[in-house]
Amino acid sequence: MQPKIAIVLGSKSDLHFFEESRALLAAFNIDCQVHILSAHRSTEKTVNFAKSSEKDGLEVIIAGAGAAAHLPGIIAAHTCLPVLGVPISSSALTGWDSLLSICQMPRGVPVATMSMDRAGAINAAIFSAQILSQKHLYLKDKLKRLKQVMEENIAFSITEATKVLK
Amino acid sequence: MQPKIAIVLGSKSDLHFFEESRALLAAFNIDCQVHILSAHRSTEKTVNFAKSSEKDGLEVIIAGAGAAAHLPGIIAAHTCLPVLGVPISSSALTGWDSLLSICQMPRGVPVATMSMDRAGAINAAIFSAQILSQKHLYLKDKLKRLKQVMEENIAFSITEATKVLK
Amino acid sequence: MQPKIAIVLGSKSDLHFFEESRALLAAFNIDCQVHILSAHRSTEKTVNFAKSSEKDGLEVIIAGAGAAAHLPGIIAAHTCLPVLGVPISSSALTGWDSLLSICQMPRGVPVATMSMDRAGAINAAIFSAQILSQKHLYLKDKLKRLKQVMEENIAFSITEATKVLK
Amino acid sequence: MQPKIAIVLGSKSDLHFFEESRALLAAFNIDCQVHILSAHRSTEKTVNFAKSSEKDGLEVIIAGAGAAAHLPGIIAAHTCLPVLGVPISSSALTGWDSLLSICQMPRGVPVATMSMDRAGAINAAIFSAQILSQKHLYLKDKLKRLKQVMEENIAFSITEATKVLK
Amino acid sequence: MQPKIAIVLGSKSDLHFFEESRALLAAFNIDCQVHILSAHRSTEKTVNFAKSSEKDGLEVIIAGAGAAAHLPGIIAAHTCLPVLGVPISSSALTGWDSLLSICQMPRGVPVATMSMDRAGAINAAIFSAQILSQKHLYLKDKLKRLKQVMEENIAFSITEATKVLK
Amino acid sequence: MQPKIAIVLGSKSDLHFFEESRALLAAFNIDCQVHILSAHRSTEKTVNFAKSSEKDGLEVIIAGAGAAAHLPGIIAAHTCLPVLGVPISSSALTGWDSLLSICQMPRGVPVATMSMDRAGAINAAIFSAQILSQKHLYLKDKLKRLKQVMEENIAFSITEATKVLK
Amino acid sequence: MQPKIAIVLGSKSDLHFFEESRALLAAFNIDCQVHILSAHRSTEKTVNFAKSSEKDGLEVIIAGAGAAAHLPGIIAAHTCLPVLGVPISSSALTGWDSLLSICQMPRGVPVATMSMDRAGAINAAIFSAQILSQKHLYLKDKLKRLKQVMEENIAFSITEATKVLK
Amino acid sequence: MQPKIAIVLGSKSDLHFFEESRALLAAFNIDCQVHILSAHRSTEKTVNFAKSSEKDGLEVIIAGAGAAAHLPGIIAAHTCLPVLGVPISSSALTGWDSLLSICQMPRGVPVATMSMDRAGAINAAIFSAQILSQKHLYLKDKLKRLKQVMEENIAFSITEATKVLK
Repeated sequence: MQPKIAIVLGSKSDLHFFEESRALLAAFNIDCQVHILSAHRSTEKTVNFAKSSEKDGLEVIIAGAGAAAHLPGIIAAHTCLPVLGVPISSSALTGWDSLLSICQMPRGVPVATMSMDRAGAINAAIFSAQILSQKHLYLKDKLKRLKQVMEENIAFSITEATKVLK
Repeated sequence: MQPKIAIVLGSKSDLHFFEESRALLAAFNIDCQVHILSAHRSTEKTVNFAKSSEKDGLEVIIAGAGAAAHLPGIIAAHTCLPVLGVPISSSALTGWDSLLSICQMPRGVPVATMSMDRAGAINAAIFSAQILSQKHLYLKDKLKRLKQVMEENIAFSITEATKVLK
Repeated sequence: MQPKIAIVLGSKSDLHFFEESRALLAAFNIDCQVHILSAHRSTEKTVNFAKSSEKDGLEVIIAGAGAAAHLPGIIAAHTCLPVLGVPISSSALTGWDSLLSICQMPRGVPVATMSMDRAGAINAAIFSAQILSQKHLYLKDKLKRLKQVMEENIAFSITEATKVLK
Repeated sequence: MQPKIAIVLGSKSDLHFFEESRALLAAFNIDCQVHILSAHRSTEKTVNFAKSSEKDGLEVIIAGAGAAAHLPGIIAAHTCLPVLGVPISSSALTGWDSLLSICQMPRGVPVATMSMDRAGAINAAIFSAQILSQKHLYLKDKLKRLKQVMEENIAFSITEATKVLK
Repeated sequence: MQPKIAIVLGSKSDLHFFEESRALLAAFNIDCQVHILSAHRSTEKTVNFAKSSEKDGLEVIIAGAGAAAHLPGIIAAHTCLPVLGVPISSSALTGWDSLLSICQMPRGVPVATMSMDRAGAINAAIFSAQILSQKHLYLKDKLKRLKQVMEENIAFSITEATKVLK
Repeated sequence: MQPKIAIVLGSKSDLHFFEESRALLAAFNIDCQVHILSAHRSTEKTVNFAKSSEKDGLEVIIAGAGAAAHLPGIIAAHTCLPVLGVPISSSALTGWDSLLSICQMPRGVPVATMSMDRAGAINAAIFSAQILSQKHLYLKDKLKRLKQVMEENIAFSITEATKVLK
Repeated sequence: MQPKIAIVLGSKSDLHFFEESRALLAAFNIDCQVHILSAHRSTEKTVNFAKSSEKDGLEVIIAGAGAAAHLPGIIAAHTCLPVLGVPISSSALTGWDSLLSICQMPRGVPVATMSMDRAGAINAAIFSAQILSQKHLYLKDKLKRLKQVMEENIAFSITEATKVLK
Repeated sequence: MQPKIAIVLGSKSDLHFFEESRALLAAFNIDCQVHILSAHRSTEKTVNFAKSSEKDGLEVIIAGAGAAAHLPGIIAAHTCLPVLGVPISSSALTGWDSLLSICQMPRGVPVATMSMDRAGAINAAIFSAQILSQKHLYLKDKLKRLKQVMEENIAFSITEATKVLK
């Protein structure tokens, strides 16, 4: 069975940050849906998405957001699946707001914060594979190959590394 | 009819920041309930509280929170009442996290951010009275008297000013 | 009677941040004057504007300013009307200066800080409607419709949501 | 088979931040070793620990560090296991240095950053359980119970919630 | 004629920051009044103080304030005398708010920002003497002696240097 | 006798920040030399410039610098004339480095920090005139006219205000 | 024997920051290899490079990196040669992340942090020459000439100063 | 011949930060003078100290300073010896001011910034030994032993490691 995750974004305009990330997920043979959901505009849909995520077969959730980025936290509040947060630097404060809003979650409701923007989106894909590999064993090999490819060709972009991975 | 508001906090341990604030609300003759609710631990209760707030006769909601402070935003997402946010400096980052998490709300879901900690709690009480005065006209006079008292005795603490107000 | 508010800016060059904000206010059927006033160049005019604001029929004041942004605070010092502050990121410090100058008001004189720049201008319009709705009851319905429109079409820009609102 | 993880710290003096965290891991019935390793003083040992971690039966690694906190990143560079980083606010810069050193990892080598200090240590324990639950299914139930306990008693400290969990 | 300046503070509780500063002014034989005035609580008094300051024989004004520190700016807006601002680190944000609120004044209304807290209060006294020395020539000699004393005994505290100055 | 001041810059490339500033000084009829001096490359020249500044007839010194901006402080260390510092935002850190390097001077050696970049350069010109007006009485009138012009036409740029001043 | 150092970068794309730096090293007659190595992708190669650096005849190592910049620290952990770190401002956080990741090294493993970007690369070249001059005495004269050239022509760019140096 | 360096501090009160540092230098058998000098109070003495440092047999200079920390930069401007800067967190801004004032030196005059406070003082001692080891070959062995001691006993404090070193 193909592993299944979701990328949730507050706005379509943030989708371009996830280009390499999605190519990488495809190379990992991980099925990845994209949802546009808002912690504030459509909390109910977001909460329902989170609540049914496990039943819907999802195994990891990646959530990217800018400014007062509450999306990853609100999803994490309603699922026991691992939630990865990607801060987006979309406001004048160059991402400090989204970094702190995502990272400083209170006791009891963790969000795993990745680095900012495009690098964070890529790392969220790899971290998802690391989580999933515990059950989907074929991923262990792919992760090791990725590490090898990067070590052998440290000048490789993630796109180049991804190609080799398939 | 006595005006009615609520103070919502993520933790009882933040209640002491609201001492002068609550005395001031009492002097304004504003009925003020205190709720301990969490954006992440008890989202449903928080959402339900917000959704029924208007029917329950509330007119303003004050929400105080620290760290990745999502509480004011989540309440604001589920009510059309004015929501005032008070950042609490409870983490090692001395309040920068709560300030940005509360203030940088996205387009469409405003939270009115007050200053940090005790000063913000006091100002939230006064700002509530300013909002409520548009319907509860007796507050206009009380607000003017507060301004006068503060002007005449700028060395007065808020507690001293509150006493004169009654 | 049509509700009446004012937007006060320190400089004409900041007016473009308030485009969607003003369209939204128009859709709310809120009469909105724009004033160019300076806390430092024309304090007297600013103080007089604030002092007579209530008599002049204003019910809410929105003030936007950059750098050492004293305008919202000085207005708030001279009126009991609710004052909303919008930090503008116009200096090299990317808005940190205006955010702190507006938000960290001392005990006794609240300013309700919105988010930065365009998002804050929009939210100030909505927060004004939330305040005004306590007296101008027709706004309650408009605010609920806006929430609905945004929930149903979370990808809608505020401009699109505004059009539906009218 | 009992799930097995490791907490790696740069200094024994940071161990007290992980008290509730370790109690929580015990309540989850997760076997947790503690290692004192340094990214800079004992890189070889750290690298060897990371390289053999999978063979040694570890499934998740938690790494806490202060100042220029390189420990989580160096471990992540040498294993395909998920690595969770906990920034410790031990320098004069109140944790900004460790937050950024842990969170801003480059493309290809993810570290999942938790919140700072004690809260982050607790969340790392829960996030570990969320990862492990994909294979160790009994954890799913424990995680749901923790969520329930916290929702029913949001005033509960993590210590109180932990007791109920066992 | 003895030179005459004023120290204006928003709160009596900030007065202790100006102890060495006032001793130094006394050693310079500069007459220094202390006023407790608030930019927000007593704007009118503050504005009137500023407006009549020149007529009242003042030659320099020192203004110290914390948080959203508008006091120096508002005074500077109403006088052509030089205004020196001393940021006070009284809020949780360790003085970043007062530093930016005082320093980032807009074009046309300068405030001369000194360093923070006690060091800034001392430097404001010396800078006042530097300004006044252009007219009150005896100060030139005192300033040179202070420089000499500090150079000869760089371990001298300001209090020790002050004693030698008299 | 025409009042005489100097603008000292670490680099010719910062001169453009002082355009309106120099026009304003001309309108004040203040003679203003420009010096390119470096605190680090040519300390001796800088120290000699500072030491002889008073003998050379200077009455105020304006020093602008970016990054680790030591120029204003080193000049202030060698003269009893008032030294005004203008932080320039020339490094990647958007001026935080120059602001703190100029503003946080130790006890005994004050520098009067102006706002950043162009606004600070303009304010340094006005603050110079405020200092000089104590001896050069004709400046009092010019300063009052500038205040009036700005108050009457708050939309005026400094360039427009300058023209009226002459 | 010609002195020999290495510049190590995490990415070829950062090489352009070192243009003037390498020209300067050439003018100092210092042999400078460039290595592209990654603290995270190719730790082993990096560690091996560091371990054999002394045997390979290197005398100083310059390491430039952005974001969570661990490269200088990991090299410093494996050699007793002096390691100079150059923070690169390549992420949205404008270099704060690389500055803190490089500078805040723990007790026992020093990295000498230079200023950010191009200026830091240049200063790393000069600092290398200062270290090397203790053994390679001809450098003492070159360093003095550089100081002289810069003092005589403070408007000289480093490129101009370099030309004179040869 | 025993290697010889100097520690220069702006104030005796900072000396306690250098306790372990000096013990470590003693264990390295490096002769270390301590000077109290000020960049601003006693520039001439500081400049003369720097200018004659090489003739006086010094080989490295360590300079520690807080707030607008100009001391390391001014020394570096007057010597071709390597200058190491240690930022001290003595102001309300928790060391951000001294870090940036020391680190962001302009092109042409490098200062090697160490970490903050006590850790930086220790690292400055070790970095000095690394520089000196190029000429004083016995230090190579001591440095390797320190690395070994720290690797074998990573829980060792620097004081314990120092004892073993002798």
